[in-house]
Amino acid sequence: MEQLNVADFERLAAERLDHRTWGYYAGGAGDEVTLRDNSAAFGRWILRPRVLVDVSAVSATTTVLGQEVSMPLLVAPTAFHRMAHPDGEVATARAAAAVGTLMCLATFATSTPAEVAIAGGPRWYQLYLFSDHGFTHALVEQAREQGFTALVLTVDAPIYGRRERELRTGFTVAHLASSLSGAALADKFALMSPSVTWKDVEAFASAAGLPVVVKGIMTAEDARLACEHGAAALVVSNHGGRQLDGVSATLDALPEVLEAVNGRIEVYLDGGVRRGSDVAKALALGARATLIGRPVLWGLAVDGEQGVRRLLELLRAEIELTLALLGCTSPADVNREHVARRA
Amino acid sequence: MEQLNVADFERLAAERLDHRTWGYYAGGAGDEVTLRDNSAAFGRWILRPRVLVDVSAVSATTTVLGQEVSMPLLVAPTAFHRMAHPDGEVATARAAAAVGTLMCLATFATSTPAEVAIAGGPRWYQLYLFSDHGFTHALVEQAREQGFTALVLTVDAPIYGRRERELRTGFTVAHLASSLSGAALADKFALMSPSVTWKDVEAFASAAGLPVVVKGIMTAEDARLACEHGAAALVVSNHGGRQLDGVSATLDALPEVLEAVNGRIEVYLDGGVRRGSDVAKALALGARATLIGRPVLWGLAVDGEQGVRRLLELLRAEIELTLALLGCTSPADVNREHVARRA
Amino acid sequence: MEQLNVADFERLAAERLDHRTWGYYAGGAGDEVTLRDNSAAFGRWILRPRVLVDVSAVSATTTVLGQEVSMPLLVAPTAFHRMAHPDGEVATARAAAAVGTLMCLATFATSTPAEVAIAGGPRWYQLYLFSDHGFTHALVEQAREQGFTALVLTVDAPIYGRRERELRTGFTVAHLASSLSGAALADKFALMSPSVTWKDVEAFASAAGLPVVVKGIMTAEDARLACEHGAAALVVSNHGGRQLDGVSATLDALPEVLEAVNGRIEVYLDGGVRRGSDVAKALALGARATLIGRPVLWGLAVDGEQGVRRLLELLRAEIELTLALLGCTSPADVNREHVARRA
Amino acid sequence: MEQLNVADFERLAAERLDHRTWGYYAGGAGDEVTLRDNSAAFGRWILRPRVLVDVSAVSATTTVLGQEVSMPLLVAPTAFHRMAHPDGEVATARAAAAVGTLMCLATFATSTPAEVAIAGGPRWYQLYLFSDHGFTHALVEQAREQGFTALVLTVDAPIYGRRERELRTGFTVAHLASSLSGAALADKFALMSPSVTWKDVEAFASAAGLPVVVKGIMTAEDARLACEHGAAALVVSNHGGRQLDGVSATLDALPEVLEAVNGRIEVYLDGGVRRGSDVAKALALGARATLIGRPVLWGLAVDGEQGVRRLLELLRAEIELTLALLGCTSPADVNREHVARRA
Repeated sequence: MEQLNVADFERLAAERLDHRTWGYYAGGAGDEVTLRDNSAAFGRWILRPRVLVDVSAVSATTTVLGQEVSMPLLVAPTAFHRMAHPDGEVATARAAAAVGTLMCLATFATSTPAEVAIAGGPRWYQLYLFSDHGFTHALVEQAREQGFTALVLTVDAPIYGRRERELRTGFTVAHLASSLSGAALADKFALMSPSVTWKDVEAFASAAGLPVVVKGIMTAEDARLACEHGAAALVVSNHGGRQLDGVSATLDALPEVLEAVNGRIEVYLDGGVRRGSDVAKALALGARATLIGRPVLWGLAVDGEQGVRRLLELLRAEIELTLALLGCTSPADVNREHVARRA
Repeated sequence: MEQLNVADFERLAAERLDHRTWGYYAGGAGDEVTLRDNSAAFGRWILRPRVLVDVSAVSATTTVLGQEVSMPLLVAPTAFHRMAHPDGEVATARAAAAVGTLMCLATFATSTPAEVAIAGGPRWYQLYLFSDHGFTHALVEQAREQGFTALVLTVDAPIYGRRERELRTGFTVAHLASSLSGAALADKFALMSPSVTWKDVEAFASAAGLPVVVKGIMTAEDARLACEHGAAALVVSNHGGRQLDGVSATLDALPEVLEAVNGRIEVYLDGGVRRGSDVAKALALGARATLIGRPVLWGLAVDGEQGVRRLLELLRAEIELTLALLGCTSPADVNREHVARRA
Repeated sequence: MEQLNVADFERLAAERLDHRTWGYYAGGAGDEVTLRDNSAAFGRWILRPRVLVDVSAVSATTTVLGQEVSMPLLVAPTAFHRMAHPDGEVATARAAAAVGTLMCLATFATSTPAEVAIAGGPRWYQLYLFSDHGFTHALVEQAREQGFTALVLTVDAPIYGRRERELRTGFTVAHLASSLSGAALADKFALMSPSVTWKDVEAFASAAGLPVVVKGIMTAEDARLACEHGAAALVVSNHGGRQLDGVSATLDALPEVLEAVNGRIEVYLDGGVRRGSDVAKALALGARATLIGRPVLWGLAVDGEQGVRRLLELLRAEIELTLALLGCTSPADVNREHVARRA
Repeated sequence: MEQLNVADFERLAAERLDHRTWGYYAGGAGDEVTLRDNSAAFGRWILRPRVLVDVSAVSATTTVLGQEVSMPLLVAPTAFHRMAHPDGEVATARAAAAVGTLMCLATFATSTPAEVAIAGGPRWYQLYLFSDHGFTHALVEQAREQGFTALVLTVDAPIYGRRERELRTGFTVAHLASSLSGAALADKFALMSPSVTWKDVEAFASAAGLPVVVKGIMTAEDARLACEHGAAALVVSNHGGRQLDGVSATLDALPEVLEAVNGRIEVYLDGGVRRGSDVAKALALGARATLIGRPVLWGLAVDGEQGVRRLLELLRAEIELTLALLGCTSPADVNREHVARRA
């Protein structure tokens, strides 16, 4: 039977993936409190539906950094898609392009930027500031050449988080490298620099030639710094609960970040989004768009490109239904009055 | 053994109904968070009982739009009663009449208004504003002719909610139409208009010739609009959690609605009412009456007209007992001091 | 193995009592939400222990209406002790006397006041204002003659609560009357008057010749009325959750009652007390003493007089330990600073 | 497989220890509400991580009373280590010394101060003020001679808490004395004086010749008294939930204590610390350091000196990782802005 929601995809993916891969994808840091809380946080807000609005024509279309997308839900950067399906990031890219949304390709991808570019959809490129500046520079050049229109700079991983599922199953990058031909980049894992600061980001942003989206902001303080150091946008993210367990859910951090940003740059959110109504809640609080990571991998594991496509279409339909039942015809109609803290 | 409370009826109905029908009746939208929350919300308020009041004569009798009813608990409009029992809405109507309360007949009923009218009890007629104005008009005429004294206009379903239990079991209106002779109206499902606005409601109300009760209000904003566009009363309702999952429990929305209405029109509530004490809490917060939907279907499934009658009598007895133990002799005695938020 | 706490007594009693008796004793009204909440409420407060106070001599002794008792824990009135043990209230009375605390004998007892008086301990007599004034008067006379020093007037039962466990097991007063010789009083059940008001209480108190303790107050409003209509003391009580389900825990109602009473009369509390620390929390909030009902019946069921005695001694030891570890040497030392709402 | 976190050590220790010893170590007073709450309290705070700080050099090193330690996590005093492993406190001391942190040796140890001193690590000595002043004096002398640099005075046990697991399993000091040669001190259990007051502490502190750390403070009031009566530092502690059940979690008491102390003396915390992130939360709220008791015993039970060492190294690594991912390079960098109450 076809999957009816993201949870269906997740259950099926858990059956199909080998336990090491499943543990790597599904797991988080420490006791996985933040991992679970990312999803639970959406339940702490309720929707306030308005009635008797003409919703005969509803569209989820919006823009991110001026790029039109078919919904305020983008594909977050996640590593090693070929572990989920032999077609890897190529399948993901085709699905995203078909559905009309944007894909963020990860540095630690198992397909090349060129392969992904062929799919033709809107695309951003995720990277870290590596100790090896030449390597960083080469990644940027390659992204620019392949038509990626923004750089997503992950800033919350100066050190690899302690993910106990990986330690228990013996999942390692070495394990990965031996099983995946495209994983040569994995050798660079050790090169992510823990000494990078906002000054480096500012220098990078001014030289990059592409807008820089800073990903991994969880506080008002850092949101202000992002605005002041050249970020074109930021992503409220805790790395899917994979870095420091015990930080808040991203949705809980969103209000303080938005207040600090005060409209200067676009703000996105990832972490725990599993329903169209989750997206609507993030929009209502002020996010421009959301990103999903793990669900895309469940789609890939279930049925490659078609799986991702069905998953994205399902979420787009949920978003459109939520808009209509909130009395909104577009993401722009959703505002702070459409949500309230749960009693 | 006879049923002692609504939960007993529910358990027995779950055994007796086929799984598709059960899923259709019992299910809600999405993850059914709102469905469960409707009931849970009553638990977030406590009763403040007053003692040493003369309660030797207690009556639950009240009025809705001037119509006397034996208790502040009405039969909500629900579809397709013949799926629960061969006597369908006729049985429900007879039971309601016998107990002295009011029944709202649904457009998507499996008995005709004429059949229901024969039972002789107080009755309102539920409908949507369909794209086919002539069809809407015909429904109103028929209701008026058959002695229905108000029209209940459902406004929270411009689009059919996504009810995953129905999708999983394969319950469809087609499935229904093939099994129920009275279901011809089901063809009209596609005709509910998503473009209806408050202006249409106002025009409808001024022409209807009967008071219009707007059902499906969940916000202060829409409550104000209802007052301003000709509603004679409104029902705080989220369609039993069947439309947009993630909206608040109706009881949680009640206070802001009542504040906005400020006494201009009567306010009713449905969603999650399962105990006489639930009714008392809604009254204490300011509702004029409550409605129950699913429990009536459990009564029907258990024992047709007798089942509904026993269920309604049980609830009336619970209401009377609650009134007495609160130190009240009638619904009018119940006020805001009889409840408080749970610590 | 000997019982280490009240929960041990409860588990053993549940095994030993027949299911009808167990259901009658253990059950509450409706969904038993209030029944459970009575106990849970104690967990919503934490103790604030003070150190380095000389606690080499700690005593739990206090007084209630001038009567010295060995601890601020009295035996609440409960009906039909012979259902728990053939020695009935006589056993309870002997145990209470041995431990030095006060027993409230219920009107619906299965031992006579004279039998209980022989035990020689401090004793109060519980009754209702019956429709039959002569019957009420006779009860008072008998209590006075037998040395009961106060009358406990239960005011929260103008109508018998709906206790579904009793309905499910078929427990009835008739069932009881047929099995217990001392249950003739049960015929009077129907005579409790639902028309009694504060004026009747005032008249009764002025004529009774004994101090009247009003039992069953849950609001500030009624607490004020009790002070104004001749009550010598009051008991914050919801009848052990047996009358109206959905009212607050007694501990949650205690602060508003104490504020309204403002020191004019003594205030006691029953409902959910199972630990010495529960007693300390009630004292810290301002109660003069607490009462326990069901635990006494568990003690009776486990081992008659000896069971009750061990249970009461256990609780007294817990109270003394709690006092010492709070840095208090007597109940009078416990004040509002010894508790705080849980974070 | 090697243990990945403290919970792994605990599970393995539960398997290896006999049930009496396990019950003695793992259990708490009463219903063990406080025992569980000590850990749960850390979950009521979230971490606020800062990014783009140079964390290429992170160190957990700090000082307590001027003594350098490799992390803000000390070994709390716990009794009878030989019950967990034949090497007892000697193994613990060696492990602590190897890891560079401080050990508090308990009076009720099963190794002598001289044996522990040989390990050479930083060390404090825990004791009570016994009724036998000469005995107390002798303990102090011995500690001073063996190079212990502070005295940890436990003040929350004027009476032994009621630990029902011990009563159920039959664990007694006598049981212990018969099985452990070093347990002669256990005879002194009866000598802890319940009459000790702050004056005695002040006299003791002025004569002790070593700084006195007062352990067992849970309120602002007692924190102020500690500052005024000669304490060099204090430990917010509820004796691991082993004395009075129902008191708050230590983390919940920490803020009021710190406010009262207002920087006059160092404040430490024990109770429920199981993760590096727990330590970071305590630091962020203002504690100078934390102590762990039971986890050390789990380390001992699992693998003696090596077990404790691995456990301490694991926690130090967790602390360092937490510091880095908070954007801190040392404990001194952690401040109130790094935590917030959970939403």
